[in-house]
Amino acid sequence: MNIEKKTEIPQETIRRLSLYLRMLRRLNAQDVKVVSSDKITKFLNISSEQFRKDLSYFGEFGCRGVGYNVNFLIRAIEKILGTDKICRIAVIGVGKLGTALIGYPGFTDFKFQIVAAFDNDPAKIGKKIENLIVLDSADVKKELKRLAVKMVILAVPAFAANAVSEDLAKCGIKAILNFSPININMRRELCVSNVDVACELEGLAYRLKKKMKE
Amino acid sequence: MNIEKKTEIPQETIRRLSLYLRMLRRLNAQDVKVVSSDKITKFLNISSEQFRKDLSYFGEFGCRGVGYNVNFLIRAIEKILGTDKICRIAVIGVGKLGTALIGYPGFTDFKFQIVAAFDNDPAKIGKKIENLIVLDSADVKKELKRLAVKMVILAVPAFAANAVSEDLAKCGIKAILNFSPININMRRELCVSNVDVACELEGLAYRLKKKMKE
Repeated sequence: MNIEKKTEIPQETIRRLSLYLRMLRRLNAQDVKVVSSDKITKFLNISSEQFRKDLSYFGEFGCRGVGYNVNFLIRAIEKILGTDKICRIAVIGVGKLGTALIGYPGFTDFKFQIVAAFDNDPAKIGKKIENLIVLDSADVKKELKRLAVKMVILAVPAFAANAVSEDLAKCGIKAILNFSPININMRRELCVSNVDVACELEGLAYRLKKKMKE
Repeated sequence: MNIEKKTEIPQETIRRLSLYLRMLRRLNAQDVKVVSSDKITKFLNISSEQFRKDLSYFGEFGCRGVGYNVNFLIRAIEKILGTDKICRIAVIGVGKLGTALIGYPGFTDFKFQIVAAFDNDPAKIGKKIENLIVLDSADVKKELKRLAVKMVILAVPAFAANAVSEDLAKCGIKAILNFSPININMRRELCVSNVDVACELEGLAYRLKKKMKE
């Protein structure tokens, strides 16, 4: 199936596709075969119209009056997102947040596999976190190549984040999910997504302030 | 100063204001008094034009050819976001992620203060995390009222997230930053922001796939 049209897809649509996927996998685990758009969107605070519009970028998936085939839709969205194959990930920096992310329960049913963890702290190197032995950051190039990792989760201190991401780019890393509390420079060859907890809270504080005025 | 105009402000602008603020606070800590827009945006991968456009929603802040007064701009943006006063926050659920978030180093310089942590696991209640004693979730209503908390970070298992957020709404909580790997229902009276690590990775995987095709 030729899933992708040439239109520019809004980032918010991509984010919602992930949410649909999470919901569909949950339904699939419950052995649901066919589902209505209402059922998919009900728990996501998204309208059925939005759901249909998001899917319409990529083609026709449902059957009017019948619904969506859960398995087919899962495979289709995975194909759109490029997560139809196992994606191997490394965590760089195993402080508290890095360690917590290695054990993150939300990866269940997703095709992400954390295959390595690195730190430069001698006290952490060699320790076991979940099923991984923490590796020495000095070996990052060799190990990431050996493990064919293209995507990392970065959880190093703010002062180190830019230098480390420069190094990672040289090691062939193509995408970084950055949890370090600093926006890292996006080099042209890198895809970067920054998750900044304090900024999220500020955004929430702003919405709260606005709501209070309503 | 009458900082806010009546226009609807894009969410992305609010997100960027947080980033500017982080950068400005860093400059302030380095005792920088006046700064150009270039210097503020350089490390954020944001153009100066974007920066000026974002600020323009709220008024005039800089002096052409002179730059921005760092202290003044910090106070102005804090006022816009509603984070000019200390904001007291509780963490609900002190598994690995909740625990890591209590110790999150990115709150430095922000006016968020984590004042309480709750769990329903008897093995965790009474334990000390950073400077907090973990409280019993059964006391959440009484304690949140006593501590005048309006905003929480939610890090409970997916299956519990919706029920817990219902309870929190009844306790007077107005805003939730949700790290549980499920989108929680947004009740009208609640501001919710969901941080879903797996969805972030999927968004990144999609961008990577697209880039590879370029």
